[in-house]
Parts: sequence; structure tokens; C-alpha cells
Amino acid sequence: MQYTPSLQKLIEELKKLPGIGPKSAQRLAFHILFSSKDTVQMLTGSINEAKDKIGFCQQCFNISEQTPCEICSDESRDASLLCVVGEPKDLVAMARTGFAGKYHVLGGVISPLDGLGPDQLRIKELMRRVTEGAVAEIILAMNHTTEGEATAFYLQRVLKPLGVKVSRLACGLPIGSDMDYADEVTLTRAFEGRKEVV
Amino acid sequence: MQYTPSLQKLIEELKKLPGIGPKSAQRLAFHILFSSKDTVQMLTGSINEAKDKIGFCQQCFNISEQTPCEICSDESRDASLLCVVGEPKDLVAMARTGFAGKYHVLGGVISPLDGLGPDQLRIKELMRRVTEGAVAEIILAMNHTTEGEATAFYLQRVLKPLGVKVSRLACGLPIGSDMDYADEVTLTRAFEGRKEVV
Repeated sequence: MQYTPSLQKLIEELKKLPGIGPKSAQRLAFHILFSSKDTVQMLTGSINEAKDKIGFCQQCFNISEQTPCEICSDESRDASLLCVVGEPKDLVAMARTGFAGKYHVLGGVISPLDGLGPDQLRIKELMRRVTEGAVAEIILAMNHTTEGEATAFYLQRVLKPLGVKVSRLACGLPIGSDMDYADEVTLTRAFEGRKEVV
Repeated sequence: MQYTPSLQKLIEELKKLPGIGPKSAQRLAFHILFSSKDTVQMLTGSINEAKDKIGFCQQCFNISEQTPCEICSDESRDASLLCVVGEPKDLVAMARTGFAGKYHVLGGVISPLDGLGPDQLRIKELMRRVTEGAVAEIILAMNHTTEGEATAFYLQRVLKPLGVKVSRLACGLPIGSDMDYADEVTLTRAFEGRKEVV
């Protein structure tokens, strides 16, 4: 025996969401079923609203409800510092550090297995911003993964000829970590990136 | 910096779902944002449809799109066997065994911490079914947890005086399990419930 058709359909739809398996989908479906009508309307309403309102800023390609977005139109930010990130959530992570420059969101990182090459990313747009604008330094804020490294390496090669300073986020031991548990690559990078104590 | 208001609102709504923390909510929100309009409409549509169509069967109190539900109106099922479960998902689990009797869904188990006492469950309705109907045996199919045990014990006490046979699902070692890893309570119950080999 299966669930009723509409419940089965709901479970199937929920299962399509990332990280939601059959058991979680079932639990979510029952939660929705036993929630008040208002609660459910708040949920579906917020989905529709976000889907309708949010687009891309045509300058930095971050998700935004307006273009240029708040950050791009913020005159108090240092336009000579441009932080390049893969995805909008990386921008939010960087923003938590209090970084006061501007951003460029690539829309992913180079990942041939996922069909993402340089042409699928906003790299041409980034180069245009560099040639047109007053950018003095580009900070590549990619994850230290194979895809992130490949993307950073590619960007380094296409950006350097434009006569702009290119830097990357440091790789090393995270705060609060235990050396004993660090992998060799991280430790090697931390060693290579050691700083003189003054 | 935060996300745009409508994205922030969507993340807040998703965070209210069970088992969805801030990171999962963010991932789901981005997934929804980058999905096609059709995909999102399928999701919200299935939520609304399930919410609109599904109610309770007024006989067994399982969730159903009609009342009496398919199981209750199935004449081929043995009405003398009544399986009592806590929640609709327990009924689905029981149904996978091929059980051919009828069901009664309590709508939860006795759990004072969650404000669920006997009065909040469909126990009166169960007793009415027993006194009115042709029920010969009641199978209590509760989880072997503190709340499940308490509920089964309570039901046993109120049902016995009605002159009906009451049984419980056996407690023991699950198929494929390793005795070495079984907890003492399970092993004690398995020992107590041992069967003579004939």
C-alpha cells in the first residue's frame, strides 16, 4: 500500500530537493500536512515571492532584487578591490569578514564533470570590468578544492596580462584546529605560507 | 550583510521545517532559486494540493482523500483483526508486511512532555469501534520506546475489560542483526520471547 496520490506526489516533489532522501521527504510531507493552513501559505508564498523577485545584478552577477545591486551601488565601498567568488553564498561568507571592496560572482567554478567550463561562467564580464574600471587588485576567493584551484589558476592566467594585481586567499590551518588532525596538503601549504614573526 | 529580503524570508520559512537547519535551508533556497519556474510550480502545487485534498478517514483516522478510506471500505479485509498504530507512517510500515486486517490510527502516542495524553488520541473512537464492531483481536503496533510502551500499556488496560483479545508486536533481535551489538533490553526481551523449536 502506498500513500494517497496527492501525498505520494508531494513526497516525490520533496525528494527532488538536494539532501532530501525518502525518509526526510516523508517527514517533511507529514509536517506540511499537519501544519496550519497559514503556515503552509507562508511557505509557498515565500517560495513564489523569492522566485518572482530575485534576479541577477548585471554588474557583479550576485543574486539581487534590483540592478545594480546594493553593493555595486554603494559608493562608500572601495572599487579598486574586487573579490571574485564562485557562488552567491561564498559572497555572503566573505561579507561576514567585513571586506569593504566590491564583488564579482562567477556563477560556479570550472568543473568539466558538471559541464561547467570558462564559457559558462561570468569570466568575460569580469575581464570587461577589469579593463573598463578602476580595479587595482583582484582577490580570488575560491574554495581550496580541485575545481576551485583550477578556476583560480585559469583566472590568474587570463587576468595577469591585463596588468592587475591578482591575489588568493591564504591556505593554512583554520583557527581552533589541531595540527595533529590536519591533512598533509593543508600542513604543507601552511608551511609554505609561513610568516616571519616581527 | 544578509541575503535579499525575499531570499532571507524563504530561508526563514524553510528553517521551520523539521530537520532543516540554517545550512540546509540556505542550500534548499538556492536550489529553488536556480530551478526552472515549472519545477518550482510543481513543488508549490503539490504542497497546496496535498493540503487541500487530504483529510482524515472518520473510521480509522488514517489520512485519506475520502471517508471511509480505501482500507476501511475494502470488504476483502478481515474486519476481526484490528491493528492499532500511532501515526499514519506506522500504518504504511505495517502495510508492507501484507497485513490483511483493518487499522486504527491514534494520531500519536501518549507523551506528556509533548502535551499528548489519552484524551488527545483517538482512544475513545477505538473503544467505540471495539464495542460496536466485530473485532476479535487488537494488535498493538507501537514502537518499543518509552512512549510506545506507555501507550500500549494504557490501551491494554482499557481494552481488556471489553472482552477482546489484545496482542503486541514481538520484541526481539531484528533480522540480519549481530547479537554482539544488541542492547541488553532487546536481548532480554528476545530471551523472554524465545520460541520452542518444533
